[in-house]
Amino acid sequence: MNAKLPAVGFIGLGIMGRSMAGHLLAAGHDLHVYNRSREKAEDLVAKGATWHDTPGKVAAHADVVVTIVGYPHDVEEVYLGANGILAQVRAGAILIDMTTSSPALAARISAKAAERGIMALDAPVSGGDIGAREGKLAIMVGGDSAAFAAALPILQRMGTNIVLQGGPGAGQHAKMCNQIVIASTIMGVCEGLAYAKHAGLDAESVLQSIGGGAASGTQLRVMGPRIIKGDYAPGFFMEHFIKDMSIALAEAERMQLNLPGLALAKKLYEQLKAQGYGRSGTQALFKYYDK
Amino acid sequence: MNAKLPAVGFIGLGIMGRSMAGHLLAAGHDLHVYNRSREKAEDLVAKGATWHDTPGKVAAHADVVVTIVGYPHDVEEVYLGANGILAQVRAGAILIDMTTSSPALAARISAKAAERGIMALDAPVSGGDIGAREGKLAIMVGGDSAAFAAALPILQRMGTNIVLQGGPGAGQHAKMCNQIVIASTIMGVCEGLAYAKHAGLDAESVLQSIGGGAASGTQLRVMGPRIIKGDYAPGFFMEHFIKDMSIALAEAERMQLNLPGLALAKKLYEQLKAQGYGRSGTQALFKYYDK
Repeated sequence: MNAKLPAVGFIGLGIMGRSMAGHLLAAGHDLHVYNRSREKAEDLVAKGATWHDTPGKVAAHADVVVTIVGYPHDVEEVYLGANGILAQVRAGAILIDMTTSSPALAARISAKAAERGIMALDAPVSGGDIGAREGKLAIMVGGDSAAFAAALPILQRMGTNIVLQGGPGAGQHAKMCNQIVIASTIMGVCEGLAYAKHAGLDAESVLQSIGGGAASGTQLRVMGPRIIKGDYAPGFFMEHFIKDMSIALAEAERMQLNLPGLALAKKLYEQLKAQGYGRSGTQALFKYYDK
Repeated sequence: MNAKLPAVGFIGLGIMGRSMAGHLLAAGHDLHVYNRSREKAEDLVAKGATWHDTPGKVAAHADVVVTIVGYPHDVEEVYLGANGILAQVRAGAILIDMTTSSPALAARISAKAAERGIMALDAPVSGGDIGAREGKLAIMVGGDSAAFAAALPILQRMGTNIVLQGGPGAGQHAKMCNQIVIASTIMGVCEGLAYAKHAGLDAESVLQSIGGGAASGTQLRVMGPRIIKGDYAPGFFMEHFIKDMSIALAEAERMQLNLPGLALAKKLYEQLKAQGYGRSGTQALFKYYDK
């Protein structure tokens, strides 16, 4: 370990988190880890990371604490719970939550941390498991600009497109924009391909015609071929996407902003989840049209 | 003029049609033209095209007739009207309708033409005024494969991505797939940017974060900056897009296919048209969210 580098705590070792923590370990940071199920930490521990059995104990050993967990209630427990980060955090530490979570919760954590003289950032990501593995995530950051500057070297181990979007919660808000655009876009991709199928067209030929023009985009390019093959394996779990859309819709309602496209996409996804597709990929929305 | 090249009739000299006809004239085809308002033909006539005062008279002078007009009822009149193409078409001619129009009408025109021993193709395009100007349109073709082979040299003057999608009407169906994907995608782009604005984010920074990832695509890249600037100038008229969505929705209903995203987008666009935005660009959907 390199004594000049800050010690990093990393909480949440899912598919994304393991890759991201791995980059920090590889870069020479002293790495302290916690995850709800310990077995997901074994690879990192074998490579030199130190296991702790609560988030608070991780925080007690770290100059920078990074979290990427599941739902807002998980974020809340990890930060604010009895064995959570704020209970044991070191003076002068920087906290970075990379979970896609509620902007209001991010602001609340930032305020609670500030009471203790601690700087907290919300920094959700886009780019999926491949972006995490390659260290090429887009990272949308909310919080204090001094905290952003201090955290940047850590964030640069995990991402390439790193933008400070504003104060506490602004990173989460920017991520909501991303998910809102995607929600209706996937709906459009599924509807276009469902129409192609019903009209008796060859879907590959349709993609050849429309994949390079005004309809083109990442969702059509990546999900289109999967939908045609009937491949609903998760790149991103439908149930996690529903979580994100729920946060976005709640925030929009709070702002008195009517987003009917988002509301419709969420409704269709919830129908599919009720049919057992929650752990399928987001492209399984096609099943709504292709029963 | 080059006597070895087929004489081409061109009907419909709007922004797209004038560019497309210009490529055929420049390539050396004997060009015969008609347009509802004659002044739009003047440039082409000055360069050597021959004006005729009905679609039928154009057809009487052409080996290949290309049409790109407004609405399905215009297509119907141009092909099937008393002074229309089928009334005066030459034996052995090939008819190519490049209007975005009804698949059912395309099939009807093809059948009527076949009764006379004439081959008709539906060949709507994607790529807009810039694609037309640069001769780089995507062309989605429906009809007989022999007719497609015969028409290909003409189509290659106007487009680069030219795909036979199936029998009569299949080109129109493929174009509907394109418009269906775009309809919900624009809605997503507008909702994401409306959320950004309401959340107090800097929209340029949001585009910087989300423009390269899973939300990325032509609509976000092209329309995003226009929406941020409040630039609603038409790249594609909202009222023409409503026409396309109406055709797609009618076809989907005929196939008993429920497309709620498309239906919602069309409803929102119709509200805006009623408010006077019909001649604005499709990106003016943002006005629904930003009143």
